[in-house]
Amino acid sequence: MESLRVALASRSYPIHIGAGVLDRAELFTPHLRGSAAIVTNEVVAPLYLERVRAALRSTGARVVEVVVPDGEKAKGWETLNRVFDHLLQNRLGRDALIVALGGGVVGDLAGFAAATYQRGVDFIQIPTTLLAQVDSSVGGKTAINHPLGKNMIGAFHQPRAVVSDVETLDTLPDRELRAGLAEVIKHGVALDAPFVDWLETNMARLLARDREALIYAVRRSCELKAAIVAADEREASVRAHLNYGHTFGHAIEAATGFGPWLHGEAVATGMVIAAELSVRARLLKPADATRIRALVAKAGLPVRPPTLARDRWHELMSHDKKAAGGRTRFIVLEGLGRAKQMALEAALVDEAIDAAAQ
Amino acid sequence: MESLRVALASRSYPIHIGAGVLDRAELFTPHLRGSAAIVTNEVVAPLYLERVRAALRSTGARVVEVVVPDGEKAKGWETLNRVFDHLLQNRLGRDALIVALGGGVVGDLAGFAAATYQRGVDFIQIPTTLLAQVDSSVGGKTAINHPLGKNMIGAFHQPRAVVSDVETLDTLPDRELRAGLAEVIKHGVALDAPFVDWLETNMARLLARDREALIYAVRRSCELKAAIVAADEREASVRAHLNYGHTFGHAIEAATGFGPWLHGEAVATGMVIAAELSVRARLLKPADATRIRALVAKAGLPVRPPTLARDRWHELMSHDKKAAGGRTRFIVLEGLGRAKQMALEAALVDEAIDAAAQ
Repeated sequence: MESLRVALASRSYPIHIGAGVLDRAELFTPHLRGSAAIVTNEVVAPLYLERVRAALRSTGARVVEVVVPDGEKAKGWETLNRVFDHLLQNRLGRDALIVALGGGVVGDLAGFAAATYQRGVDFIQIPTTLLAQVDSSVGGKTAINHPLGKNMIGAFHQPRAVVSDVETLDTLPDRELRAGLAEVIKHGVALDAPFVDWLETNMARLLARDREALIYAVRRSCELKAAIVAADEREASVRAHLNYGHTFGHAIEAATGFGPWLHGEAVATGMVIAAELSVRARLLKPADATRIRALVAKAGLPVRPPTLARDRWHELMSHDKKAAGGRTRFIVLEGLGRAKQMALEAALVDEAIDAAAQ
Repeated sequence: MESLRVALASRSYPIHIGAGVLDRAELFTPHLRGSAAIVTNEVVAPLYLERVRAALRSTGARVVEVVVPDGEKAKGWETLNRVFDHLLQNRLGRDALIVALGGGVVGDLAGFAAATYQRGVDFIQIPTTLLAQVDSSVGGKTAINHPLGKNMIGAFHQPRAVVSDVETLDTLPDRELRAGLAEVIKHGVALDAPFVDWLETNMARLLARDREALIYAVRRSCELKAAIVAADEREASVRAHLNYGHTFGHAIEAATGFGPWLHGEAVATGMVIAAELSVRARLLKPADATRIRALVAKAGLPVRPPTLARDRWHELMSHDKKAAGGRTRFIVLEGLGRAKQMALEAALVDEAIDAAAQ
């Protein structure tokens, strides 16, 4: 097992990465003060719920469970209220520990429940998808969706620990594995050019689920993200760089009704558009945009955006949280591994979308 | 105008108390970075919305408004979602300022909206009831209700400023003035015996809305509360003392369906029960419990709880947030002005409720 740390003073926490770690009760014990509530979904529950329940129970804790539907549609008020109903019916107090067992949707939903249940209780992330292991489980962003935009209602609430068991990736559908690779690629493209080189060399191993390659990709992604989060927890500055590809990605997800495109797939295409935008802003060499597009394609991810009217793109992006004072800011690249934020003209954005669509 | 400060490092903020202060644009200007959204209710809007809107607009800010229904029933998911819909439809970004204009319900609701909209935006409290001026607008507790308990879903989110205009108390119904006095009495009884003496002497002036007396009561309450909040923002220790009377009060509100009893009325009766409990725990002199009961009665507040089965009391109190590990803890008095927290036997609690009912 490898462990690294997200450095946030009194809210610092460890990320444990390894094979079979979800059975290790000693990773949970330090965080249990009362009852534990496992929040998971109907796909993950048959696979891993019993093992996590057994690990928690072995510490003597009372354990209750909430199983929510699978998929992005579960990330809304209705499901959140079901979680609250269950916590209250089982009389969990302020000393409860919420355990998020699942992918990004479960982590965001359970994390937001933890952030707001009785004004905040502790929680632990046990991410079971690659996307959650490399991205959403780390950094304390929690949220639910609103019909007018993804993640519009949420909170910053750091977990007490992240326990990433790479064995759980064995049961992940290929399409979701690839969606997770989109965020891995993002970490390289936005923050670390040598990691892009490594990904170009090792993409076939990752797609073949070579365990050693996966552990390296998870660990390197977490290291890169943890450093950013430690420097800017609440996204006042550099943390925004982690949103590379996301303004366009969110627009694609919203336009298609949250579901047909997986989040990682939308981000993958968003990264291609953002690379084209960076070229048009005269910040990135065309050859680097080509490398990004090729790497996304190599991961089996979509490079072309859906066909949307220009107004619709701009309307959807104006709802994005990075919209400030009416002008949309974008994360662009001043070179591979060097993201920056800037406001850009709508015309350049239109050109970038057209270029990605070709 | 008098100003005091809640000392919370980077989240410190001023409380301004005076007559006519809600027109003073310079109190808002430092906190405006983009658009402002005033959240108020249908009773307060006709009285003060135009003046606050004018003050905000005079700074050049775009101002939007959300008017919610009056009363405790507005403090739920449905109204919260209406606020979010409005903020998103008007495309307010992360730089938005939410302005809560109203009583405790508006402050808690708008504050929780601010805590969770786009993972947190700034907000200002303009409390227009005595209860909100002396209690709920200060300290950053925000929440909505759940059918199984009051304030069960919420967040700690400090305002950037509190602007308490005592002129707004001129339009407050007598019953609500008295309900606010319950929390004023609580500050004395739980934290400051000399303030109890002052209240015994000045209760008639307060009920007659003597402005000087009201300003003193608001200011002293805010000073006492600000010191507690500065010492223990998240209620890990002494902040719980501010819940004196509230465990019983919440049970009364929940049993009667949130509405027939005003929050302050329920707390008033809760304080009488908690004083009887303190006597039975051999912490408080019977004469001091009698003084508390007399002061509550002098304020025109109810001293007798509604008739509920014993099991129902215990069931309702077990949902209270102060329930930890299955055992209900109570805030009791070791003398006037000296609250402490302790777990007590159910039999003593039953005796205290019976004593208050006599």
